[in-house]
Amino acid sequence: MANSKYEYVKQYELDDSLLPGCWIVVRIDGKGFTKFSELHGFEKPNDKRALDLMDECAKEVLNEFPDVRLAYGESDEYSFVLGRSTDMYGRRASKIVSLLVSCFTANYVSKWAAFLPGTPLRSTPMFDGRAVCYPLNSNLRDYLSWRQADTHINNQYNTCFWALVKSGKTPTEAQATLRGTQTAQKNELLFNEFGINYAHLPEQFKKGSVVIRRKTMVEVKRREDGTPVLRERNLPTVLYTDIIRDEFWSEHAHLLAP
Amino acid sequence: MANSKYEYVKQYELDDSLLPGCWIVVRIDGKGFTKFSELHGFEKPNDKRALDLMDECAKEVLNEFPDVRLAYGESDEYSFVLGRSTDMYGRRASKIVSLLVSCFTANYVSKWAAFLPGTPLRSTPMFDGRAVCYPLNSNLRDYLSWRQADTHINNQYNTCFWALVKSGKTPTEAQATLRGTQTAQKNELLFNEFGINYAHLPEQFKKGSVVIRRKTMVEVKRREDGTPVLRERNLPTVLYTDIIRDEFWSEHAHLLAP
Amino acid sequence: MANSKYEYVKQYELDDSLLPGCWIVVRIDGKGFTKFSELHGFEKPNDKRALDLMDECAKEVLNEFPDVRLAYGESDEYSFVLGRSTDMYGRRASKIVSLLVSCFTANYVSKWAAFLPGTPLRSTPMFDGRAVCYPLNSNLRDYLSWRQADTHINNQYNTCFWALVKSGKTPTEAQATLRGTQTAQKNELLFNEFGINYAHLPEQFKKGSVVIRRKTMVEVKRREDGTPVLRERNLPTVLYTDIIRDEFWSEHAHLLAP
Amino acid sequence: MANSKYEYVKQYELDDSLLPGCWIVVRIDGKGFTKFSELHGFEKPNDKRALDLMDECAKEVLNEFPDVRLAYGESDEYSFVLGRSTDMYGRRASKIVSLLVSCFTANYVSKWAAFLPGTPLRSTPMFDGRAVCYPLNSNLRDYLSWRQADTHINNQYNTCFWALVKSGKTPTEAQATLRGTQTAQKNELLFNEFGINYAHLPEQFKKGSVVIRRKTMVEVKRREDGTPVLRERNLPTVLYTDIIRDEFWSEHAHLLAP
Repeated sequence: MANSKYEYVKQYELDDSLLPGCWIVVRIDGKGFTKFSELHGFEKPNDKRALDLMDECAKEVLNEFPDVRLAYGESDEYSFVLGRSTDMYGRRASKIVSLLVSCFTANYVSKWAAFLPGTPLRSTPMFDGRAVCYPLNSNLRDYLSWRQADTHINNQYNTCFWALVKSGKTPTEAQATLRGTQTAQKNELLFNEFGINYAHLPEQFKKGSVVIRRKTMVEVKRREDGTPVLRERNLPTVLYTDIIRDEFWSEHAHLLAP
Repeated sequence: MANSKYEYVKQYELDDSLLPGCWIVVRIDGKGFTKFSELHGFEKPNDKRALDLMDECAKEVLNEFPDVRLAYGESDEYSFVLGRSTDMYGRRASKIVSLLVSCFTANYVSKWAAFLPGTPLRSTPMFDGRAVCYPLNSNLRDYLSWRQADTHINNQYNTCFWALVKSGKTPTEAQATLRGTQTAQKNELLFNEFGINYAHLPEQFKKGSVVIRRKTMVEVKRREDGTPVLRERNLPTVLYTDIIRDEFWSEHAHLLAP
Repeated sequence: MANSKYEYVKQYELDDSLLPGCWIVVRIDGKGFTKFSELHGFEKPNDKRALDLMDECAKEVLNEFPDVRLAYGESDEYSFVLGRSTDMYGRRASKIVSLLVSCFTANYVSKWAAFLPGTPLRSTPMFDGRAVCYPLNSNLRDYLSWRQADTHINNQYNTCFWALVKSGKTPTEAQATLRGTQTAQKNELLFNEFGINYAHLPEQFKKGSVVIRRKTMVEVKRREDGTPVLRERNLPTVLYTDIIRDEFWSEHAHLLAP
Repeated sequence: MANSKYEYVKQYELDDSLLPGCWIVVRIDGKGFTKFSELHGFEKPNDKRALDLMDECAKEVLNEFPDVRLAYGESDEYSFVLGRSTDMYGRRASKIVSLLVSCFTANYVSKWAAFLPGTPLRSTPMFDGRAVCYPLNSNLRDYLSWRQADTHINNQYNTCFWALVKSGKTPTEAQATLRGTQTAQKNELLFNEFGINYAHLPEQFKKGSVVIRRKTMVEVKRREDGTPVLRERNLPTVLYTDIIRDEFWSEHAHLLAP
């Protein structure tokens, strides 16, 4: 049962290395999450418990993989940014994508009960993933701006849609009401008909979640007298902040460093 | 906050479709499972509970993805075979690999407690994945033969190694004892020194696990008098059998059908 | 002026190896040959001199690259078939495609004057190229059948079109006349209106050109008395024959051998 | 002889688009030019006629393809730079590489006699090609610096080597003499033993050839009295200049413009 005569099959594995020197973005997306969120009774348009679970999983990805600098998430998707010069797994696309997806999924399942207590997991949460390369810093910022602008557009639409549906309209009627409306009109609709000031909605819903590492004081042990010993650690932290404007990038200049 | 000026970034996502007409094999591998198995006290050289959990996850992958025809697993790895003519997700490598990995991982975590009761999950189980294309039926069979021959070689070595270690040798001594030994010598060592007849070890350890769909009678409901109503279903089933020889392929000829 | 600090740029060259075990087809196409053929007064619908030049260049490709088993050409395109197990240039796509294109182009220019005497080359003939992999023998045969069926369809159409134009119709009128006509109707038109029996047209025009190596007696030197010394050589030879039917492949079974 | 049942083979052609937003460099290399140069009696270490022919072919590539901004050549190789935002042939690698190689080769053959009069072409000149992407301007400059530093190193070595060989040493002796020598030592050897001041050698040999488009007055017609009518045209021009230092890039800032 010598193995050698079969080993030629290894040569069929082709190299899928990503271009050196580029930013690598891995975006993961929930599979069939419309159905998944209905099955588990997610609150509409946003379920804070489910979003917090997503954020927690993203933090675990940063804990696990030091080469992930930054993550941005909304709804059932998350984007992870690896530095230009990363050599993680030789930049092999399938290795990187599969491990990030696997890490995220494992945490989603294992932390589910903590974030949605009393809601048993009734189907298998799954995420797909893909890697995209961006040559320039401006491309990376545009990518993240694209996702955050998308968050805003979707959230505003969904806030209106579910307000209409909860007020008694059918989904079809709600869609018809919203067709062709602009940002200002949607805000007026929310305010005039439902007393909702869009600006006052939680930042997490409006801006999505940014995960970066931040210096944080953490308790590493306790002295005999019970007082905690604190040390500064660089820990993944979730921010709900604007990443389209320059301010964020000036404040966190290291994120774009080579 | 119009999104259109950012949307150009979508074009940076390159097509990663796999060649049509080929068998697609997705192999997933546990990340750092030597450490993971120690941390959770896996029995050596084989922990039946952990292998059964792997097999169960593979069955769930077949339940979820009808285009997966066959799976073969050993230790902390599993290979999934998609038919030549599958058009699952347009044959995009990252989509297919990430979803299979995600499905497997989610099940690994959610079914852990059922298969290893009393052993809390203390770290995140992760799997990487890759897709390889094989043009010919013979290539696919050689791939699977390669994995099954590998199972045999590893299992025989590990059975000897752990028998030696459990008998008091250091790992280094055990390695030295085994260096350069052939199959027959290892079997003799097991029998003469430890009374182990290799041929009598569980087939799951020696041959690994094959998952195919098989016609199975399942209870679909109960009559009022309590008698079960059975229906034939085509369900993922685990076999511990030789897939190197022709018999398996003659018996399950549909597996290689176009 | 040490070179070492720049050498990192070599790493940006990504592997573009073609899947092992597949047939490799490199198809080259003339760039802008409608204009090129007008500029050089090619006879319509077929210029035998230009076709013979294409065939000659294809023969030179087979002379230069032993791994090219077979070529098929029509009009301004040629397809070259490399064996499944070729390891020419490590199966790197750009290396293979560029060298075949370069060899073909060089010969096209250098042999132009011999095939089109009295017609000076007034612009640069250029060919693009691409490589496609085919897993099965049947795929390869279907590929070649696709090209030969295309030759037939194009040639029949063009024969009608140019007969109409030469008889005084405008191109637009000729197109209108032919729109929606079937094979039989086109043959009738040719026969009834122009006295052309399509079946009697040259095989080169109707079937395109196949290049394979054939045992051929060639003069290798002359004896002192002037009589030639012949030796059998395996030389590229042009055939105008049906490669869709099985006969060709039975007769030349070695072409599909592993 | 319907074509439709074969057309599925078209789907086997996979997308090979190059990443958007990157510089594309296509480098072509002569195949077997050591032998080719011997066969045609090229002067050693540099044959100005052959280098001029290479330069002329590169100019024709720029004439033919407006998206090629810049070319750099030495010996039997040439690199062509396409702008970041080029959409030439949808950035398909095989299309771009094959056409540049084909254009270069066609010109090499057709202009051979003009540049090497009295030297008939006795074998087929062929060039391979490959495309590499560079994300940053600095990467592109480093690539070109890499090639120009290589030109210098090779030319200095070859100048010494051939001086030694022409003075009666065997190639093996010449290699031994040069092994481990530094730049300064090679210059001294040339000066002391052969009276060659390296600094006075032709710039084309020391620096290689840069091709860019430059505003040039060209005669577009003649007036009745015979005086020429000149117009400014943007024509490919060959420079022998340093492209490692910043001066070149300041002077021709448009080359790096988006």
